[in-house]
Amino acid sequence: MIYEINETHDPSLKSWVESANDPNTDFPIQNLPFCMFWPGQQSESPRLGMAIGDQIFDLYTAISSGLFGADFDEIAQEMELCDLSFLTEVYGPEVLADIRRAAFDVLREGAPDDLVRDAKKCLVAAKGIDPELPFEIGDYTDFYCSIYHATNVGSMFRPDDPLLPNYKYVPIGYHGRASSILVSGTDIKRPHGQNRSDAEAPPVFIPCKNLDYEMEVGFFVGGGNEQGTAIPIEEAEQHIFGLCLVNDWSARDVQAWEYQPLGPFLAKNFATTISPFVVTMEALAPFRTQAFERDAGDPEPLEYLADEENEKLGGIDINLEVFIQTQKMRDENIAPHLLSKSNMKDLYWTIAQMLTHHASNGCNLQTGDLIATGTISGKHKGERGSMLELSWRGTEPIELPNGETRRFLEDGDEIIMKGYCEREGFRRIGFGECRGRILPAD
Amino acid sequence: MIYEINETHDPSLKSWVESANDPNTDFPIQNLPFCMFWPGQQSESPRLGMAIGDQIFDLYTAISSGLFGADFDEIAQEMELCDLSFLTEVYGPEVLADIRRAAFDVLREGAPDDLVRDAKKCLVAAKGIDPELPFEIGDYTDFYCSIYHATNVGSMFRPDDPLLPNYKYVPIGYHGRASSILVSGTDIKRPHGQNRSDAEAPPVFIPCKNLDYEMEVGFFVGGGNEQGTAIPIEEAEQHIFGLCLVNDWSARDVQAWEYQPLGPFLAKNFATTISPFVVTMEALAPFRTQAFERDAGDPEPLEYLADEENEKLGGIDINLEVFIQTQKMRDENIAPHLLSKSNMKDLYWTIAQMLTHHASNGCNLQTGDLIATGTISGKHKGERGSMLELSWRGTEPIELPNGETRRFLEDGDEIIMKGYCEREGFRRIGFGECRGRILPAD
Repeated sequence: MIYEINETHDPSLKSWVESANDPNTDFPIQNLPFCMFWPGQQSESPRLGMAIGDQIFDLYTAISSGLFGADFDEIAQEMELCDLSFLTEVYGPEVLADIRRAAFDVLREGAPDDLVRDAKKCLVAAKGIDPELPFEIGDYTDFYCSIYHATNVGSMFRPDDPLLPNYKYVPIGYHGRASSILVSGTDIKRPHGQNRSDAEAPPVFIPCKNLDYEMEVGFFVGGGNEQGTAIPIEEAEQHIFGLCLVNDWSARDVQAWEYQPLGPFLAKNFATTISPFVVTMEALAPFRTQAFERDAGDPEPLEYLADEENEKLGGIDINLEVFIQTQKMRDENIAPHLLSKSNMKDLYWTIAQMLTHHASNGCNLQTGDLIATGTISGKHKGERGSMLELSWRGTEPIELPNGETRRFLEDGDEIIMKGYCEREGFRRIGFGECRGRILPAD
Repeated sequence: MIYEINETHDPSLKSWVESANDPNTDFPIQNLPFCMFWPGQQSESPRLGMAIGDQIFDLYTAISSGLFGADFDEIAQEMELCDLSFLTEVYGPEVLADIRRAAFDVLREGAPDDLVRDAKKCLVAAKGIDPELPFEIGDYTDFYCSIYHATNVGSMFRPDDPLLPNYKYVPIGYHGRASSILVSGTDIKRPHGQNRSDAEAPPVFIPCKNLDYEMEVGFFVGGGNEQGTAIPIEEAEQHIFGLCLVNDWSARDVQAWEYQPLGPFLAKNFATTISPFVVTMEALAPFRTQAFERDAGDPEPLEYLADEENEKLGGIDINLEVFIQTQKMRDENIAPHLLSKSNMKDLYWTIAQMLTHHASNGCNLQTGDLIATGTISGKHKGERGSMLELSWRGTEPIELPNGETRRFLEDGDEIIMKGYCEREGFRRIGFGECRGRILPAD
């Protein structure tokens, strides 16, 4: 079941939080994404919050002070423990939908004066807080669902046969490293690794030479499945809590040497950065779109991955942008430079298909698991979601506005990813930023 | 630093727990492996314990009743929380070494009568309890460190070039699924998956046809590293808490079709079974042996993986055995049949090298992470650690004592793995069993 458009999507609705009414904000009252945040230096644990305009609405204070009324009394008693993982696990994903709706009623223009007065005490400027990972991520899986990305990468390594025979049948994925997932804003140290770019000499253990990013979207599992049971495609969306941006940092020279026969390992597991806000499936309802339109000769998805509603509305129209700002650009006060634009709707497989495939062998998914799409590239050159593709494996250096060039990332480079949904007749819904800056290797 | 042989390894030491003095027991007083167990139907959480002979020594009761004296008062206050993960994380792996030594002093022959009297109240027959996973496993990594296994599998798929060029430089590994790790004794449901054994037809989604086991050993991380920092090879063993047996169940038909280009995924993540007891590095001290003796033409390990002590004592001499008992064998009262014998000392890379390699790019390992060796096969035919190798991809069916044959596992088959160390002048140290029975697909 895919969320339908309802009264919370009405674009004429405003908030008394003025910044939420700015047409360019990522966080109008129609969005209200969840986050976990550190309210200040003194706090011992992160708090549950929600983005509204340029503010964070402190749900910890809101709920525990009784702002949302008697329905939330039980949870209010436990707010000390209440991170997203705990609430979803103990009370079910529905309780987060209830909390979001209660916040909506309090934050909207026209809410009762006494509620507004109390709610104002729960606002913190987003600029002043440190975000935390929204969920405790048990397992992290990364898919490979952009056929354009797979074709680009494939043609570099196998020009005659870029796409492997399984691609159009199997949503290809692999397990990533959960422990090294970081929240936006954390610096990334350039990793060491084995490099065998000189095939005539033995490999050397050196700082990564071809450091890259990958523009992806991730979704969090909300409510899992018992080990040994599958999740039918018709029910897949009920297990998806919401989405964030993902930067799957990649050491390309390490990857090329290590990845046969078991896939990427140290090339990927030193760090993965995610944006702090979880945009809910409800907020994304107006931006649902048809699944990828397969070419005439392409096979249909096998039956366990086929569903009419998924075919019609399984895609999501999310604009994705990647920017770079080098150290020199910062020194010269040059704004971040747009490297690429792509869109999530161009994925060959939908998130429902990824989730159903993942559990189709009885693998137990759990609340808080992060499942990412893989690099999202589009058909055209400006839509390539990694530097590997943009610079075509380093052979076509990218020119930056100040005359610098890039084949891969250099120390001091910052990558900033953005995502947003736009549709005539609806408010813009954004994801915030997913940022990370490269520090030199030890 | 590798543990040296000390007074706890003295083979003449006996326990007042009579069954621990049986020369065939896995659990003499020289072993004392940790476990977590459910003491009975009524208990709300699993307890910390330790195997001794045919008994489990209930460390929860022992410590919280003050049996180990005032040194453990602080921990005694927190025993409600005290699983292996908590103790190692909060007090450090050293506290477990202290607990083990305290247990040793209480369980040995000649311990003071009043202690023995109280300790007897902490013994539970091992047969009557349900084991639990010993650690909360955050991330699970599986290596591929048996050159014999890699060569066997490689020759089936690439007869001319069985071993890839990276194998002798890189300890090849990949991330597995943490959520689906099960403790010994849990049934395994045959998974569904995409099968394309007929290359002329589209793949079909059916119950796995070529279900297999893999005989592996795993080690638990005790004390991790900060993200962005490496673990020098000289310090690797200090981060290793202890070992268990691992059965990496594998759906070979699914694997063959899905694994390019990102490695095994659904072929492996439906279930992994581990033995319940964590045999400590201290208990294994007498069985340390030199690292794999590389062929004359083989490259030396790169510098970050090279260490003199590791070269001399990085290997571990553990005998591994795999047994099968089919439903028909159970019906006919035929004992489990030995399929293979192999030995951990035949691994091309040591566990210290696996751990150091894993963290060499700054990937943060954490207490409780499980790192497995990959299938352990030996040079000879009877030493193949998977059915894929024993039946040579199904082409040489295995004959069982009652006339049955197996190419791969059938419903009702139970796989029982055993591991033990033997050395002249020392007590036998065992791992207990790692068992799992195949249930039919849904």
